[in-house]
Amino acid sequence: MPDFDSYLQEKREQFEDDLCELLRIPSISTDSAYAADVRRGSEWVANQLETLGLQVELIETKGNPIVYAESPPVPDAPIVMVYGHYDVQPPDPLDEWITPPFEPTKRDGNVYARGATDDKGQMLTHVKSLQAWMETQGKLPLQIKYLIEGEEECGSECLYEYLTEAKEKLACDVVVISDTSQFGPGQPAITYGLKGIAYFELRLTGPKQDLHSGTFGGAVANPANVLTQLLGAMVDSDGRIQIPGFYNDVQPLSDRERSQFGGLPFEEERFMEQIGVKELHGEKGYTTLERRWARPTLDINGLWGGYQGEGGKTVLPAKAGAKFSCRLVPDQDPKAITAALRTMLAGLCPQGIEMELIEMHSAPGFVVPLDSPFMSAATRAIERGFGRSPVFIREGGSIPIVTEFKEKLGVDTLLLGWGLDDDNTHSPNEKFCLADYHRGIKASAHLWHELSRVALES
Amino acid sequence: MPDFDSYLQEKREQFEDDLCELLRIPSISTDSAYAADVRRGSEWVANQLETLGLQVELIETKGNPIVYAESPPVPDAPIVMVYGHYDVQPPDPLDEWITPPFEPTKRDGNVYARGATDDKGQMLTHVKSLQAWMETQGKLPLQIKYLIEGEEECGSECLYEYLTEAKEKLACDVVVISDTSQFGPGQPAITYGLKGIAYFELRLTGPKQDLHSGTFGGAVANPANVLTQLLGAMVDSDGRIQIPGFYNDVQPLSDRERSQFGGLPFEEERFMEQIGVKELHGEKGYTTLERRWARPTLDINGLWGGYQGEGGKTVLPAKAGAKFSCRLVPDQDPKAITAALRTMLAGLCPQGIEMELIEMHSAPGFVVPLDSPFMSAATRAIERGFGRSPVFIREGGSIPIVTEFKEKLGVDTLLLGWGLDDDNTHSPNEKFCLADYHRGIKASAHLWHELSRVALES
Repeated sequence: MPDFDSYLQEKREQFEDDLCELLRIPSISTDSAYAADVRRGSEWVANQLETLGLQVELIETKGNPIVYAESPPVPDAPIVMVYGHYDVQPPDPLDEWITPPFEPTKRDGNVYARGATDDKGQMLTHVKSLQAWMETQGKLPLQIKYLIEGEEECGSECLYEYLTEAKEKLACDVVVISDTSQFGPGQPAITYGLKGIAYFELRLTGPKQDLHSGTFGGAVANPANVLTQLLGAMVDSDGRIQIPGFYNDVQPLSDRERSQFGGLPFEEERFMEQIGVKELHGEKGYTTLERRWARPTLDINGLWGGYQGEGGKTVLPAKAGAKFSCRLVPDQDPKAITAALRTMLAGLCPQGIEMELIEMHSAPGFVVPLDSPFMSAATRAIERGFGRSPVFIREGGSIPIVTEFKEKLGVDTLLLGWGLDDDNTHSPNEKFCLADYHRGIKASAHLWHELSRVALES
Repeated sequence: MPDFDSYLQEKREQFEDDLCELLRIPSISTDSAYAADVRRGSEWVANQLETLGLQVELIETKGNPIVYAESPPVPDAPIVMVYGHYDVQPPDPLDEWITPPFEPTKRDGNVYARGATDDKGQMLTHVKSLQAWMETQGKLPLQIKYLIEGEEECGSECLYEYLTEAKEKLACDVVVISDTSQFGPGQPAITYGLKGIAYFELRLTGPKQDLHSGTFGGAVANPANVLTQLLGAMVDSDGRIQIPGFYNDVQPLSDRERSQFGGLPFEEERFMEQIGVKELHGEKGYTTLERRWARPTLDINGLWGGYQGEGGKTVLPAKAGAKFSCRLVPDQDPKAITAALRTMLAGLCPQGIEMELIEMHSAPGFVVPLDSPFMSAATRAIERGFGRSPVFIREGGSIPIVTEFKEKLGVDTLLLGWGLDDDNTHSPNEKFCLADYHRGIKASAHLWHELSRVALES
């Protein structure tokens, strides 16, 4: 195994500069106004890989381009695929950012920018580890296929299609993704379970235009009132989701898993301080980690209707709407839940209101086996990169692509998270710890070595 | 009684031009960005009255100026006070206006602009009738005091203070307000009952910033979820408001009033078509007119929280809020209802959410006696102006100032509405029928004569 320490030490500044360059590109995929920036993001990644000698393609889709690159095959060594994304969430509310979201700024050992941790910074560790191998060894010990997409924050639809089309080209033995978190500062983690998601937009329309709430109040159903009635009925005061059949396929948590979660050094006080709440709240009968990692949830992500300006306006709004999503656990079927939700809403919605329920995107949850040789290889690589053994955790977030890789390519995914829980993912002041960026690069460089030694089943 | 017919015929164009000039001023009182325009509105009205020889004052307040003007006293004739407002509601949603809200446009016999009917057009009829008397008779048959304010759309706080301060100066025998509607096209009406109002803003705060709904969902109370739970619990599926004690002081509708409402030519089909709904909806057990005019309601006027942009964003919002208001009937006490609401919300709001309930403005509802000589005088004036006897109706809207006049000056108000139900008050494409503008001016001119003949109790 080569020793990358002095090389990596020497390259710190350049690797940080490269990250900042990528972070300056506002590649917001959910807002079509940023389409040109999204493309610039893809070109930047493609250019990095090309410069390192890989064969690179910018795959055009009906949406945003996919960056694909591969290194030469290595006989008898596994093929690993690195998946990541160069697109980011919208940065609003803008006025809560201390420094602008697309002007990466270093403070207290972190870099602050939209996409710093999700996923530009984490993804780039696997590009910089390639650079380390190429610039010190001249070649890789195994074949790597890079698949870096630009629609992760808006459903990955084009990538899913491409997975079906390019199944053989993308054949591999294991997938590596860094888009999750460590358990805490200095405590790396491998995530072996993720929640699924079913994301909806609900649109309600009443009268053809906003009405005077005095003259017309009492005569017609008010879409904003109805919105609160429909969504207010979704979760009861014990935190139980009221969609009929919602819990039918939810497996009870095993005693082993509950005790494993309970053994982790999770400090509720510190957690509350971090997110700024005085009390935690959720489904009755479960601990906070259980609720976050292994119990399904329903959260409203946004809602709107009527007058939102200063002062009072006595309108009865013509329209109201909301975006909301369920986080699902393994075995829950997004399709069945969507159907039950649709029936429930139709039953609750009064006459005089037109209701539209839009399915934005969905994916099932999953859990990966802990006892594979790939998992052991990753454990050793993380020990080298971070100086400490990882703990094994689950996550409340969704990476639907992991299910797609299992279903379409038949491979498991290693979720090696270099981020931290307080990185403000999807929030103002997103950040990534620069020390973790460099540790991630080192762990990744070691990972290529460790994975190259895994004996392939024939 | 002088005959104003030929004079009014001759002045039609000038009177319309004057109205359009006033409508061009965006005197939006709920938005402080328009403060200078609001002032221009007050100056325009003051200038009109001054030009007609009245003694005019622009009364400065901590908010928007009040225009006050009076004509000379007339012995043995009653003193009438004309109340109106030169401020308007915000025009949004702007993209639904066919022509811009502050570029008055004539189409199909109407003038379209924000404030056309509420209240610039209606208020101006009582200024133009003054002009008719001054330019044809050289004097008025009674003393008129004009009190035209600029905060009707945001609570009239400064006017209420002024009423207390200037009680003696404002002494009068009856108040005239035109800020309501006819019963239908060609069928004038006198409104003898108005609803009260209690307007609130509810602000909920959870975590210190927006969080990733996957990583944090299930751990903390979501302010948007809680908003829907709190507000969704306010009205049941039968349209009954659930604030404890809400109906305690609500008098049942009398058989006489129910049969009077039932006798009015109200066509539900036409009404539904006008507002663009397929079904009407409201409190069980009451007709549409009863619900609109004589039963209390609760409507959300606006709500917000989290991500409202294009596509999906998986946030758990830090904040959510809503504006909502109850329309109250006579004998309901806004203070008692506010207290009950506060207790109810506090009981429903989970730990981990900070709740702030802001009382924006409130006023009780009222009903005025139908058998006074002022009411008879107004009936005759309307017959002259509109060529038809008025019907006697109630209204769902609130004109809290009417209660103030009763309480502070001890006088009743004549609510003489020249508008129409489909004038789009508070909505895009607000309009005022120009024929009604001219009929209103004529009725007003006759009103000064009819009121001048009312014998004063000594």
